[in-house]
Amino acid sequence: MINFNKPYLTGKETQYIEDAVASGKISGNGKYTQLCQQFFEQKYGFGKCLLTTSCTDALEMAAILINIEPGDEVIIPSYTFVSTSNAFVLRGAKIIFADSSEENPNIDTTKLEALITPRTKAIVPVHYAGMACDMDTIMELANRYNLFVIEDAAQAVDSFYTGKNGIKKALGTIGHLAAFSFHETKNIISGEGGMLAINDMQFANRAEIIWEKGTNRSAFFRGEVNKYSWVDIGSSFLPSEVIAAFLWAQIKQLNKIQERRKAIWEQYYERLNNTNSNFKLPQIPNYATNNAHMFYLVFESLEKRNEYVFRLKKNGIQAVFHYLSLHRSEYYLKYNKALELRWSDYYSERLLRLPLYFELTNTDVIKICNEIINE
Amino acid sequence: MINFNKPYLTGKETQYIEDAVASGKISGNGKYTQLCQQFFEQKYGFGKCLLTTSCTDALEMAAILINIEPGDEVIIPSYTFVSTSNAFVLRGAKIIFADSSEENPNIDTTKLEALITPRTKAIVPVHYAGMACDMDTIMELANRYNLFVIEDAAQAVDSFYTGKNGIKKALGTIGHLAAFSFHETKNIISGEGGMLAINDMQFANRAEIIWEKGTNRSAFFRGEVNKYSWVDIGSSFLPSEVIAAFLWAQIKQLNKIQERRKAIWEQYYERLNNTNSNFKLPQIPNYATNNAHMFYLVFESLEKRNEYVFRLKKNGIQAVFHYLSLHRSEYYLKYNKALELRWSDYYSERLLRLPLYFELTNTDVIKICNEIINE
Repeated sequence: MINFNKPYLTGKETQYIEDAVASGKISGNGKYTQLCQQFFEQKYGFGKCLLTTSCTDALEMAAILINIEPGDEVIIPSYTFVSTSNAFVLRGAKIIFADSSEENPNIDTTKLEALITPRTKAIVPVHYAGMACDMDTIMELANRYNLFVIEDAAQAVDSFYTGKNGIKKALGTIGHLAAFSFHETKNIISGEGGMLAINDMQFANRAEIIWEKGTNRSAFFRGEVNKYSWVDIGSSFLPSEVIAAFLWAQIKQLNKIQERRKAIWEQYYERLNNTNSNFKLPQIPNYATNNAHMFYLVFESLEKRNEYVFRLKKNGIQAVFHYLSLHRSEYYLKYNKALELRWSDYYSERLLRLPLYFELTNTDVIKICNEIINE
Repeated sequence: MINFNKPYLTGKETQYIEDAVASGKISGNGKYTQLCQQFFEQKYGFGKCLLTTSCTDALEMAAILINIEPGDEVIIPSYTFVSTSNAFVLRGAKIIFADSSEENPNIDTTKLEALITPRTKAIVPVHYAGMACDMDTIMELANRYNLFVIEDAAQAVDSFYTGKNGIKKALGTIGHLAAFSFHETKNIISGEGGMLAINDMQFANRAEIIWEKGTNRSAFFRGEVNKYSWVDIGSSFLPSEVIAAFLWAQIKQLNKIQERRKAIWEQYYERLNNTNSNFKLPQIPNYATNNAHMFYLVFESLEKRNEYVFRLKKNGIQAVFHYLSLHRSEYYLKYNKALELRWSDYYSERLLRLPLYFELTNTDVIKICNEIINE
């Protein structure tokens, strides 16, 4: 059986966990949390990073930081994970769903301006499959209408965007805030886990307070105040050092992991390209890089996709579809009128993800491709 | 140096973590999460348990489950951790602070009824130091005024309450809902970590949905629905299997850990009792048991406490005070008028916690007691 995903263990995870425990500090914001945060800040150029227990929690921090209040509107793609939406709903936001583009599941920026109203507070682009959204257009609109941009970079670690000015920037460094995931299905993992990246430094101090349950505990440990107390809303957003130690082992192998994932992605692409008219392959926009988070096919119909899922399963290969359009969900329709978002539904029905993980062998990829090609 | 706390490693943590990783499943709600939850349900008689990333998150789940809305009032003690309050503030609640009792830091139930208004939705008793609040009185008031009771049992694992009917029940099984902590300072730990316990089973199904980011994913995996989608608000409340595997190792040694902690507590009590008029020792109410979460002294004054903190520190012993009254916090006073809560302030100023952890030796305890006794 070839599973859709298999979490990869570098071999150093338990060593670092044991070290964390031996240090007498396994609650949050210890040595490994600092190491991970510094790594991301330095390698990719985020203003400030804070590890969180999940990408969901990082999005919730963002919603608190931009002071979402009941009635504020937040624009997000309908083709995304439920947390992109719930994080803002929890603070009272009204969600305005945007459609995906025809070319890929990312938000269609040509239709974005029409969704902006005087109540709009933020746009949350999701870099689907780790491939950049059209950030120049999004940031230009945000500047013009005075909106916050929060990049949902759950899948986008180690991926880049090159703007019209020719400058190449890491995803998650472009918006005011960004959220990453280290869920077991991601390129580097800690089981559950995430990170808030802060680029607009007006948010830096308050982020630290919200992260520490609404207290100024971080300032206390830096000796800036002589006791810490309740100064704001907040939650326990910071993960255990056990999680950070696990992530640190993964970070140390990031290059090796990325190299292998990209090789698998290329192998899929080369073997499947121009072989079959039942599906299309992902196309990487000129401004984007590929972090090999995911390899997907887009079929001509739901029926055709189901046929392939069934056939692959029969041959011991687990391929899985992805999001269901959030604008069609039970929760959304309880409070809102039905929407038509053609391309969101298109990807809900037709996109299929193939196995992609570090330990997937070339032989596995060949087997999978052969099953797909030989109708 | 004798630290205030030292996280105890049973030795099996990394073995279980490696097993979790080898199973290919380290995101939430896997084998170890199930094992931990079943253990607590079966040993203590909770209706249903769900592990969370923190006790804070368990309290947030409770606030969502009882449908806290802006303007709802929630009664909590002022002498507690900030999360007891923030979890409800995040949903829009108005916090009504109750005083501690003269006998111990737990909520003074003789003054509770006066705080109830038509807007009151819940009472959140905190079992300070793992010693039961007067739950008969609290539950009787809750029944009479149709309120929810959410036990903040952060410190109260493996502790009990015996009601007027003579029935002995585990703390956390009495209220409609309860929240536990496995923070590194607790009796059994996972670095950061917590658990929601559900006793009123009307909440069981929705709790599972809220826990899984507002989706019916759990029902999907049980085969009850054929796909899962957005059905409610929620968050990523569930911890990584890495955390659950760590906790499972601790659970397996619970009896051994508790035996040692209780022996240390008794040793402190016997050595310090009737030795010194500068402080009082904790008294366990007749209806409560002692889970040896904490050993504390209550000094006659703030000055006297500071004198002892300084002297112990000089002799290599770390003793620490605890909560600052939340009704005096910057955040509370920004939105509310000043309150006088005498006993909350009393414990803020005078309570001192002594080192208490599994690996603290009898010699350590003797040294600490001698420093305290020999003024």
